Amino acid sequence: MSILAVGSIAFDNIATPAGRKENVLGGSATYFSLAASYFTDVRVVAVVGEDFTAEHERVLTNRRVDTRGIEHAKGRTFRWGGQYLENLNEAKTDFTELNVFEKFQPQIPAEYKDSEVLFLGNIHPTLQSAVRLELSDVKLTGGDTMNFWIQGANGELRETLKLVTVLLINDGEAKMLAGEKSLPRAARKVLSMGPKALVIKHGEYGATIFFREGAFGVGSHPFRAPALPIEEVIDPTGAGDSFAGGFMGYIASQPEINREVIKRALFYGGVMGSFAVERFGTERLQSLTREQIDGRFDVFRELTHLG
Amino acid sequence: MSILAVGSIAFDNIATPAGRKENVLGGSATYFSLAASYFTDVRVVAVVGEDFTAEHERVLTNRRVDTRGIEHAKGRTFRWGGQYLENLNEAKTDFTELNVFEKFQPQIPAEYKDSEVLFLGNIHPTLQSAVRLELSDVKLTGGDTMNFWIQGANGELRETLKLVTVLLINDGEAKMLAGEKSLPRAARKVLSMGPKALVIKHGEYGATIFFREGAFGVGSHPFRAPALPIEEVIDPTGAGDSFAGGFMGYIASQPEINREVIKRALFYGGVMGSFAVERFGTERLQSLTREQIDGRFDVFRELTHLG
Repeated sequence: MSILAVGSIAFDNIATPAGRKENVLGGSATYFSLAASYFTDVRVVAVVGEDFTAEHERVLTNRRVDTRGIEHAKGRTFRWGGQYLENLNEAKTDFTELNVFEKFQPQIPAEYKDSEVLFLGNIHPTLQSAVRLELSDVKLTGGDTMNFWIQGANGELRETLKLVTVLLINDGEAKMLAGEKSLPRAARKVLSMGPKALVIKHGEYGATIFFREGAFGVGSHPFRAPALPIEEVIDPTGAGDSFAGGFMGYIASQPEINREVIKRALFYGGVMGSFAVERFGTERLQSLTREQIDGRFDVFRELTHLG
Repeated sequence: MSILAVGSIAFDNIATPAGRKENVLGGSATYFSLAASYFTDVRVVAVVGEDFTAEHERVLTNRRVDTRGIEHAKGRTFRWGGQYLENLNEAKTDFTELNVFEKFQPQIPAEYKDSEVLFLGNIHPTLQSAVRLELSDVKLTGGDTMNFWIQGANGELRETLKLVTVLLINDGEAKMLAGEKSLPRAARKVLSMGPKALVIKHGEYGATIFFREGAFGVGSHPFRAPALPIEEVIDPTGAGDSFAGGFMGYIASQPEINREVIKRALFYGGVMGSFAVERFGTERLQSLTREQIDGRFDVFRELTHLG
C-alpha cells in the first residue's frame, strides 16, 4: 500500500554540539517521506515557498517520492531555528517563521485519493481531521501532535484522535495529553480517546507501543523496541518523524497488519530514527540501501534478544 | 556460588506520591541481599546500631541470608530521609545521619573468606578495595558507586575500578565518571579504567550492558534489557540495588559465566527492580516466589522479543 504523508516542509538552522548548519531542508513531511520511501511508495502533501528550488524537490523525487501534492505558494518556506545543548532529546527554539505554512490548507490531488495508509504530521488538528475525512479508502491512519496543540487546540485534537488509528507521541506529550504521570495509565487514557494503538517515543531509549484490548491481535500487552546507543548524535532534528516513516512505511509494505508486523515496524522505526541522527538534516536518509536498513534491524534484534 | 554483599543497612523515611513511611528497613546491602536470595546463598557484611532488632534481622534470615557478618555497634543505625516528587527516578534527600555507618570498617568473618562472587555496594571506594583484596577466591566482583565518590574520592575510586569486574551505575554517573556526554563513548572510557563490563541503569527504561572487547565472549556488542512499564511506582528506593541483586544473583547461580548468562542476568535485574518498586521498602522482596520471578522474566521477554 502507498502512504500519503501530510505535514511540513521547512528550512532549519540547527546548532548541535557537533556543529551548525543553516537552511537545512527539513520538516516533518520531508523526514517522514524519505524514511518511508525505503519501504513503499510515498505521496506527500505540503506547502513550500519560492525559496524551495527544483534541487530541493529532487531530494524527494530521487527517492521516488511523489511530490505532485506539494503546493508552491508565494513567499518563503516555513523556517525554524533551534539548538540542542546539554540534552540532545530536547531542542531550544531560537525562532519560528511560519511563512507560507501559516495559511496551509492541505489540498489532496485526485491521484492521491485512493491512498490506503495516511500519516498526519504535526499540523493543526483541524487540518488533520479535514484530510482524513476527505479520504474514503484509508485503512490505517498514523498521527503525530505536540504540546502546542494539546494545550492550545485540545478540543479539536480530541476530534482528530477519534480518526487516528495509531498515535505517535513522546513521553511528555502522552503524560500531558492524559494528565497522568504513570506511563501505562496515561497510555490507557489516550487509547480511550480513540486510537487503537499508541506509540510512545522515548528518544535514546527507544519506544513502547500500547494496544487497545484486542486491537490488531489478542490482549493488550505492550511491546518495547530499543534505540541503538549511538556513538555520536550529530543532529537529533527529525528523529521522531523518521521513526514514524520507518514504522508506517514497514506497516504499509506488508500484506496484513497484525501484532507481529507492528512489533517489527517499531524496530524499523528505531532503525530509521537512528540513521537520521547520524548526519545533519536528511543527509543520511537520502542514500541508504535496504540492505543497510535490514542490517541495522538485525543489530537492534541482537541488542535486545536473548538466545 | 554464594555471594558476599558489602554495603549499608539503613532506616529510611520515604515520601512518594503514593504516601509516606518512616523507619523503613533499607540500605544497599538489604535490598541487594533480598533480591539475590532468590537465586543463590547470600552472605552480608554491614554495620547496624542498637535500634536494629532481632525482628529486623529476621527479614534477612527468613530469606536464608547469612547475617553473621553484620556488626552490631553502639549507637543508631544509618538513617536517610528523602522524597520523590515529579521525577520518580530521582530522590531529594531530606537528611542523612551516618551514625554507626560513619566509622564502618567492613570485617569479613572467616566463614565468608571462600566467597567467589562479591558485591561491593555504594560505600567509600577505599573500603571497597580493602574488602576485595582480603578475599582470594573471588571470581567476579560487582561494584556500585555514586556521584559523591566520583567527585570526592576520584583517585581512590580509580583504584577500586581496577578490582571490579562489572560496574553497575546509572546514566548520569557514567557520564560524570567518564567526562563524556555520549553514552557509548562514556562506556568505553569507563571500561578502560578496569571493569570488563559496565551496566548502565536507565531507571524506567531498563539497562544497557557494555563489554570490553572479548570479555565473557566474542566482540563488544552491547545488550539492552527493558524495564516493565509499571502501573504505579509506590517507592523507587532500592530499585538499583535490587536490580544488582537480581543481576549478580542470577550470574552466581550459573555453572558458567558467559555472554548469554549475563544477558539473562540483565533481564533478571530488571525483574527484581520492577518488583522492588511495587511496595514501600523491601516489602515486595520479602515474599516472592521463584515462579513469580520467572513469570515476570517471561513477560519481559515477551515485551521485547520479535516472534
